Amino acid sequence: MNIDPSHPRAISLKIRDQLVWGKKQGLTSTAGLIAHGRGEAFDYLLGEKTQKFAQEAIRAAAAYLLLAKQPILSSNGNSSVLTAKEFIKLCHLLNCKIEVNLFHFTKKRAELIEDYFDKLSPGCVLLSRRNIPVVISNIASCRKVVLREGIGSADVVLVPLEDGDRCQALSRLGKRVITIDLNPISRTAKKAAVTIVDNIVRAMPLLIQEIEDLKRSPKSQLIKITQTYNNKKILSSALQFINNRLVILAKRQI
Amino acid sequence: MNIDPSHPRAISLKIRDQLVWGKKQGLTSTAGLIAHGRGEAFDYLLGEKTQKFAQEAIRAAAAYLLLAKQPILSSNGNSSVLTAKEFIKLCHLLNCKIEVNLFHFTKKRAELIEDYFDKLSPGCVLLSRRNIPVVISNIASCRKVVLREGIGSADVVLVPLEDGDRCQALSRLGKRVITIDLNPISRTAKKAAVTIVDNIVRAMPLLIQEIEDLKRSPKSQLIKITQTYNNKKILSSALQFINNRLVILAKRQI
Repeated sequence: MNIDPSHPRAISLKIRDQLVWGKKQGLTSTAGLIAHGRGEAFDYLLGEKTQKFAQEAIRAAAAYLLLAKQPILSSNGNSSVLTAKEFIKLCHLLNCKIEVNLFHFTKKRAELIEDYFDKLSPGCVLLSRRNIPVVISNIASCRKVVLREGIGSADVVLVPLEDGDRCQALSRLGKRVITIDLNPISRTAKKAAVTIVDNIVRAMPLLIQEIEDLKRSPKSQLIKITQTYNNKKILSSALQFINNRLVILAKRQI
Repeated sequence: MNIDPSHPRAISLKIRDQLVWGKKQGLTSTAGLIAHGRGEAFDYLLGEKTQKFAQEAIRAAAAYLLLAKQPILSSNGNSSVLTAKEFIKLCHLLNCKIEVNLFHFTKKRAELIEDYFDKLSPGCVLLSRRNIPVVISNIASCRKVVLREGIGSADVVLVPLEDGDRCQALSRLGKRVITIDLNPISRTAKKAAVTIVDNIVRAMPLLIQEIEDLKRSPKSQLIKITQTYNNKKILSSALQFINNRLVILAKRQI
């Protein structure tokens, strides 16, 4: 679809269009489209901008990823369609792998997404047909199956657009979970070590920038960033922001 | 799909299922599914009930429609799939027509929706292949094309699930725009004369009821309803309601 760049909601419409393209390619699930719509609603409430609490979370995420012994980038349908290039850039920056992990799992879709990444940058993504699957815990979805070389042995997992169940399971296994979630009251948001309450399309390039900025910082500085970071405080700030914004908007209407 | 009526989210799942059916029939667009997801999130924040501010807006909408010289009912993919019967009932009650108008326009889809209405009740819908199209303004989408006999010459337009650009353009032309929109901070919500912040599935039957109740009222009473109605106040109440609910939800989460 041709989206007129002068349309006031051109960016949002372009993102929708990418997902519609992803659906046609078999990368995005139908349920993923509805989930994106839910994200859009929260983005409206956040003013469709990266707010201060998100910037702070991005900084902590960068520090955690740089300190990790074996980080992994977990991607699903929507995140691969919207930010494949950013995933690959992170992959090179951190010298780590991408693992495809789907809530609405089909072998075909997982392999399509893997091939999509593999074509963009060969070797970046773990191919499930060549790796050993392991079951991490009693999660009521196919996301419990992970790859031994990937999430199975990672200490820090970047998993944007996660589901709550798995976020909790990964945390229980002692892994640091970093998520990007527009909904600050989701279970994922609460269970992650770092929750970036922002649109993935805005947050991923900022995360890359932050990693590039902190890359040469001494380890002690990175540790300090992670130690002073408080995810509950960040989520609380996000909720306060939405509340304040709603109050201001309500007044403006009167 | 068989949805267990005892499922806590049976109504919501049934609505999703209707849209998935609509997608298969070619009536709903893929992007329409995303838009519905956004609506779902706002409906959650509204407690999935018709609140007082929506009831007040429905009353004003009924008065405007009864006072109109030439009202028109504008339908898109989602609204036709979810509330075709209600559109037709309104059409008979108000002795007016339905016009299909799509944001993600294809001739094929527009005609499919027209045929869908026409089969349910012949003569209710304006058929684009038999009517003269006119361009109403510089809108950055195909929605700028309307039918001369329909939106082109109407004074009051009921257009649930509208986009902001067109809502503004129709208002500029001096038409009264009545919309149903779950997002109280959308441009549509702000630009319409009457914004029913509610789920279309709940609002349409209530609008029919209200029109039936007010049908025999003197014109002076209807005018009074429209004169005392304040859309800005209504939107402000909706925002306040969401705000209060978020505060309660946030407390419950923490």
